Amino acid sequence: MNSIDKPGEKRHHDPEKARLRCRQVLDAAAECFGRSGFHGASMAEISKAAGMSAGHIYNYFDGKDAIIIAFVEENVQRVSAMLRDLESQADPLQTMLDDVPRSVRDDLARAKWILPLEITAEASRNPKIADVVHDADRRTRAQFCAILKAGREQHGLPVDDAVLEGRMNAIITMFQGLPVRATHNPDLDPEPLIASFQLALRTLLFS
Amino acid sequence: MNSIDKPGEKRHHDPEKARLRCRQVLDAAAECFGRSGFHGASMAEISKAAGMSAGHIYNYFDGKDAIIIAFVEENVQRVSAMLRDLESQADPLQTMLDDVPRSVRDDLARAKWILPLEITAEASRNPKIADVVHDADRRTRAQFCAILKAGREQHGLPVDDAVLEGRMNAIITMFQGLPVRATHNPDLDPEPLIASFQLALRTLLFS
Repeated sequence: MNSIDKPGEKRHHDPEKARLRCRQVLDAAAECFGRSGFHGASMAEISKAAGMSAGHIYNYFDGKDAIIIAFVEENVQRVSAMLRDLESQADPLQTMLDDVPRSVRDDLARAKWILPLEITAEASRNPKIADVVHDADRRTRAQFCAILKAGREQHGLPVDDAVLEGRMNAIITMFQGLPVRATHNPDLDPEPLIASFQLALRTLLFS
Repeated sequence: MNSIDKPGEKRHHDPEKARLRCRQVLDAAAECFGRSGFHGASMAEISKAAGMSAGHIYNYFDGKDAIIIAFVEENVQRVSAMLRDLESQADPLQTMLDDVPRSVRDDLARAKWILPLEITAEASRNPKIADVVHDADRRTRAQFCAILKAGREQHGLPVDDAVLEGRMNAIITMFQGLPVRATHNPDLDPEPLIASFQLALRTLLFS
């Protein structure tokens, strides 16, 4: 038993300590889901990897669904911060285009694949996870759509709803496809893919 | 026990009957993987859904890995037939572009998501499945690349290796992203997405 894990220990009242315990569980769960899949990983396996008793983990998460929901929320917050940063730029659409080399490389990195793939597979069959994923996507789309609309107005381009929705979903589809592509073709050369992504993205953003 | 499933029954010597038994197992497995995930579905569950004893199934597939490998091979054959058909057209690149409404709708259909998502998630963590998926992708890319090269030559466009590889991987990424997009945003309107896909694909094929 880990020294930080005392029998009967309850959820920390200190929010910073509670946050650290949550982090500890999430890191362990990411490792276990990556190794055994969401269904294959047991709470016992996660508890062992976290160095915390299953009972202690249940003070923070009432099961694997709650853990995967925390990953979805974490990702929304990450993407939201990225979009707020983009929004603060002088020319957000051009910045998005200039940022393609970094964002493509980032999405191709192996460490980034596993959890999104696992969450998507689980959302395709678990209605509770599906609801959370749909809500997360709705919030991200609202933020992205506002940036796309303002950016296209800035460049004097059409901003009707159907155009915005189509362009936005196409762009997200391209980036969401990257972990799938990298899983199927792990040796792909990022350079020509980046050039092609920039070509397609330029058309989707600026035409 | 199902009437077709006699104790100790061996693999059929009649290839057509063996093919039918394999199909029966694959359909049952697709249903079980879709409901419980690859790791969640047991051979017992698959055997029950197929109406065959587990022992009888093992005459055809030596476990869940062998079943998922059969799905991968089935998909390669499906895509290969589609690409051969494309190759036989007078203008394959234009045909690919004209075919976007059908192919996008097809990839967005719920029944089509589950297995590819499950296979990709499993390939991200199971080296045996990963090897099979990489080999399948290599064969499909070789076939697709030849069509892209001939098509671009037909239109007098550059065909150097890096351009071909980048365009091809970008196009496959877009289509592989569709089941992911549909899982996250199941209510998306296909029409504007199709228009955006055509716009991006036209640039990737013809510039």
